[in-house]
Amino acid sequence: MHPFDQAIELTERDQGLHGEAPLAYWNMVGPYGGITAAIVMAAVMRDPRREAEPLALTVNYCAPVQRGPYEIERSLVRTNRSTQHWRVEMIQTDPKTGEPMVVVQAMAVFGARRDLWSGRAAKPPTAASPEGLARRRGSDEIAWFQRYDIRFDRHPFKSPPDEPVLHWVRDDPPRPLDSIALASLCDTFFPTLFARRQTVVPVATVSMNIYFHVGAAELAAVGDAWLLGEGRSNAYHRGFFDAEARLWHGEQLLATTHQVMWYRQ
Amino acid sequence: MHPFDQAIELTERDQGLHGEAPLAYWNMVGPYGGITAAIVMAAVMRDPRREAEPLALTVNYCAPVQRGPYEIERSLVRTNRSTQHWRVEMIQTDPKTGEPMVVVQAMAVFGARRDLWSGRAAKPPTAASPEGLARRRGSDEIAWFQRYDIRFDRHPFKSPPDEPVLHWVRDDPPRPLDSIALASLCDTFFPTLFARRQTVVPVATVSMNIYFHVGAAELAAVGDAWLLGEGRSNAYHRGFFDAEARLWHGEQLLATTHQVMWYRQ
Repeated sequence: MHPFDQAIELTERDQGLHGEAPLAYWNMVGPYGGITAAIVMAAVMRDPRREAEPLALTVNYCAPVQRGPYEIERSLVRTNRSTQHWRVEMIQTDPKTGEPMVVVQAMAVFGARRDLWSGRAAKPPTAASPEGLARRRGSDEIAWFQRYDIRFDRHPFKSPPDEPVLHWVRDDPPRPLDSIALASLCDTFFPTLFARRQTVVPVATVSMNIYFHVGAAELAAVGDAWLLGEGRSNAYHRGFFDAEARLWHGEQLLATTHQVMWYRQ
Repeated sequence: MHPFDQAIELTERDQGLHGEAPLAYWNMVGPYGGITAAIVMAAVMRDPRREAEPLALTVNYCAPVQRGPYEIERSLVRTNRSTQHWRVEMIQTDPKTGEPMVVVQAMAVFGARRDLWSGRAAKPPTAASPEGLARRRGSDEIAWFQRYDIRFDRHPFKSPPDEPVLHWVRDDPPRPLDSIALASLCDTFFPTLFARRQTVVPVATVSMNIYFHVGAAELAAVGDAWLLGEGRSNAYHRGFFDAEARLWHGEQLLATTHQVMWYRQ
């Protein structure tokens, strides 16, 4: 079983949905934010009431996810002809009080794709082939770095600050793409603040937003190919900064994603 | 009283928060989406438990808001040292069943701004002065067009499809800026699909995301000045398309905003 599929495993028990915070995707003080987004998406994707294809996912990180068990609460808020709206919470026991606490709150929208005129406005950037680029070196102590093979077209520390950061990315070991994996891949972008300051400072994602631009059949056709990410920021202001990014497979835009991140220093 | 302040008026009664769908900001089949986002933001801004400044707001439009009364349910999900997380729902009576129905679900995050290094990555676009540009003509039957003075630097139908659409915007009559008004202004962007197709087709916002890049003091300093909007789309795909946009006051980035919209034809 691929470590990603182990990490998003959920068990139905006592009328609840239960999982275990995935150590294989651990970051510094909790799981990598992308795997948390994937767990939220998996909880809805596997619900028999779910209709249509992922369209939008917003994940708000309310508190660090702790080691150990969590429960997922999901509510189907509304089903329309073209869209379906969900609310999802991840709940753990507060280690201080012993009471339940919401560590993640999220909303997901699903949309029925139709055979209508389609077009693209954004164009993919050009980058050197991933085979000739070096893999991003990460501390062995940070587990999630081992789960993704990330290769910068040019290291962000050496890129002009006005240009987007380009990175190739795929699961390690490779895994066929689906919308759950895509949600996690949307958090692999390099925090541009590090490049801007030319040093690593403490940062944490507060909120992540993802728009899915293709459906299940198109994602399945990607297989385990390299994806190209293009990320930039607009503003770093008094403790918070944003990121906006695109994930491409060749000429096809798979997802656009946005974050607001907390920083210190 | 300014029509905007009337539109966002909420009354506490029977342990609930109540309002009336604002006819002064009516769009075609419901209120203009921006005024709904403003109502959500107002509900939290005026809660005595609210701490710090708006950071992120995601509004999911689950069903058209009907004429008549609505109720707001707001939950304070979590307060941390640097962030505060809220959930908000707008509820109306389903005209078909007589049961309560969620017409809007939203999440808001507030953040404590600190005296830290700040910087900007995006640069404002250049546009002709608004005084010399014509006001956007809109049907007299669409009320919200009367509430905003919108002036295109170049009409979107005449702009190259790869370039962002630039528009000046302010309340009509002018009104001092705050985060609630800013939330509404984030929905004034022209649907690029119209320009791409060179015709108006049915569209509706499914989800809107806003990141606030400045705090209350900086917004107050803007007063009722013109804001410059810069909007573009990445993909139109089988019934849904995205928008990403920035709102500027001079050199200062006030907000970035993203939407996913449904379209037909």
